[in-house]
Amino acid sequence: MTVIGVLGAGQLGRMLALAGYPLGLRFAFLDENADAPAGHLGDLTVARWTDGAALDAFADAVDLVTYEFENVPVAAAERLAAHVPVFPPPRALDVAQDRMKEKNLFKDLGIETAPFAPVDTRDDLDRAVDAIGLPAVLKTRTEGYDGKGQKTLRHRDDLDPAFAAIGGRPLVLEGFIPFERELSILAVRSRTGETASWPLVENVHREGMLRLSTAPALRAGGALGEEAASIAAKTLEALDYVGVLAIEMFQHQGRLLANEMAPRVHNSGHWTIEGAKTSQFENHLRAVLGLPLGGTEAIGVSAMVNLIGETPDPAMVLGIDGAHLHLYGKPVRPGRKLGHVTLVEAERPALHAALARIAALVAEPSLSR
Amino acid sequence: MTVIGVLGAGQLGRMLALAGYPLGLRFAFLDENADAPAGHLGDLTVARWTDGAALDAFADAVDLVTYEFENVPVAAAERLAAHVPVFPPPRALDVAQDRMKEKNLFKDLGIETAPFAPVDTRDDLDRAVDAIGLPAVLKTRTEGYDGKGQKTLRHRDDLDPAFAAIGGRPLVLEGFIPFERELSILAVRSRTGETASWPLVENVHREGMLRLSTAPALRAGGALGEEAASIAAKTLEALDYVGVLAIEMFQHQGRLLANEMAPRVHNSGHWTIEGAKTSQFENHLRAVLGLPLGGTEAIGVSAMVNLIGETPDPAMVLGIDGAHLHLYGKPVRPGRKLGHVTLVEAERPALHAALARIAALVAEPSLSR
Repeated sequence: MTVIGVLGAGQLGRMLALAGYPLGLRFAFLDENADAPAGHLGDLTVARWTDGAALDAFADAVDLVTYEFENVPVAAAERLAAHVPVFPPPRALDVAQDRMKEKNLFKDLGIETAPFAPVDTRDDLDRAVDAIGLPAVLKTRTEGYDGKGQKTLRHRDDLDPAFAAIGGRPLVLEGFIPFERELSILAVRSRTGETASWPLVENVHREGMLRLSTAPALRAGGALGEEAASIAAKTLEALDYVGVLAIEMFQHQGRLLANEMAPRVHNSGHWTIEGAKTSQFENHLRAVLGLPLGGTEAIGVSAMVNLIGETPDPAMVLGIDGAHLHLYGKPVRPGRKLGHVTLVEAERPALHAALARIAALVAEPSLSR
Repeated sequence: MTVIGVLGAGQLGRMLALAGYPLGLRFAFLDENADAPAGHLGDLTVARWTDGAALDAFADAVDLVTYEFENVPVAAAERLAAHVPVFPPPRALDVAQDRMKEKNLFKDLGIETAPFAPVDTRDDLDRAVDAIGLPAVLKTRTEGYDGKGQKTLRHRDDLDPAFAAIGGRPLVLEGFIPFERELSILAVRSRTGETASWPLVENVHREGMLRLSTAPALRAGGALGEEAASIAAKTLEALDYVGVLAIEMFQHQGRLLANEMAPRVHNSGHWTIEGAKTSQFENHLRAVLGLPLGGTEAIGVSAMVNLIGETPDPAMVLGIDGAHLHLYGKPVRPGRKLGHVTLVEAERPALHAALARIAALVAEPSLSR
């Protein structure tokens, strides 16, 4: 019986395990939190990422290691990699954890991004603004997620307070892109080198958090879809990647600008559980095990709505035909991702009708655009 | 957090839990076997069905009880029902455990069956054969499953050895039906009284075990489908049933003859995981919780192949486009159900092509009909 070790035991780990049991796998999780939502679906080791003895014991108890959380310290992944295979490779973790390394990788691969410049000092910030112009977004290079560690600069007056708020550690300034929409691509590469990608996803964020994903994105076939698939393929190859990789992009004036990547299964891929022939979770596991990848075609059209900070009455959600409820078993807390709902329909008008019914249950302005 | 108590921790319990975690549920299992396949997906109490103290402690630890195994003693279900809701009702268990009670229920509801007669003594057997004729099938009234406890009688000479082999406890003689095919209907009734049924399934058994299910069954819409749905609806109402119920039937000269029922999720409904809008497992949980039932429409056409006694190389199975592998995590043993593969395709020719590829991996004559 193959035991998959997962770093992190959040909802992504939970959904990996739910996809993995049918493949005959077992799971062990390592997390700093004893209440982590995947804890009921496998053995849970509660330890700090810096606890070498715990990492070594974990490595001994599993057949391979993957992660569901990209802020695992690279040193922890490397320590584990000395004992067991670790996928995706720790280098992908290293690149994805630093916005400068990430942007430089895209640049080296000829993948377009917003203009960017490193900012370590207050003087660097002035120079970067001179080069890039305003508006622009000042971001921490590391540890940013769900919109945390970001400041939008619109006027010269915004520079001092923004630097005061998040300065003192490595930053990056990025040109502000007045994008038409946000898209993401989920792609997967197996240990055998086989690759696949799902149809492009259109995403709506609010306050830095993903609220709504629709897939396949409208008007995203043809050249746009091919460009996205090529961006993903180049990145997978460059990192000798194994597993699912998500790349978030802006669409602006017909071009795709890569924004950031996540070296793991991704919230904008949750629709694949019901909406695609094979889910991102199952294909991630197939990839790290070197098994053939499953088909990534969409089944109809899907929308995924995040449940953030509160959850509607399950009976009301399940009363909507075609609605699939996913609760993560987490204690309610403002701003926390507690679950999601996926709607799958054969045609878009039915999808929009179902989405209107969800909007009535979830206080989420982005659903009523 | 609602905790569902499940009597039995086999593969059906495992698949119930996999369907239930996304609904925010937790699971506790009671089984006589410490290695039961659902044991990794919830708390497992290892105890005998007759262990009253264990049953009482189990009842205290869960919010409601259901079962995945129909040979749970009715007394155990009734003892639990004094403490917590138990669904399906223990009466359904009682009826389904005794072939005479089952057949009499069908008869009372005006549902056609093969002719049948109770057999307690060797003399009863002669009288029953006089009434029903040969060929006929002599079966134990209780504890038969997967073809165990059955003897086919073709000649008068067969009576003595058959009675010697399985006599000495209550038996039933059933007329042998030279059926055209075997069908099953999966139906569900919620605590609220809401009912639904999935499209009819065509089944192939060999040596008493289910080998192949295809759904929706060919030429099973219209009057035949309505008759099956009516058989299920009458049975659900008569038992004041809550949960998923499976009824196996023979099709003979355009009529449906009810053969037996299972008061639980059923092997011939495994295709619903990927092949229907809502799986039998999710709808069973929705039903026992009084949540709205999900749609039971088929998504394309599906075939489910049981993996019995041995499992093919997972890489070979997963290399077949549209194949979904389900392994139960059980030790290999001859004649044991170890997993299943579901194939889902938009059209039947593609399904048959995929089935031919599975047939090459699984030594199962029924796939090559």
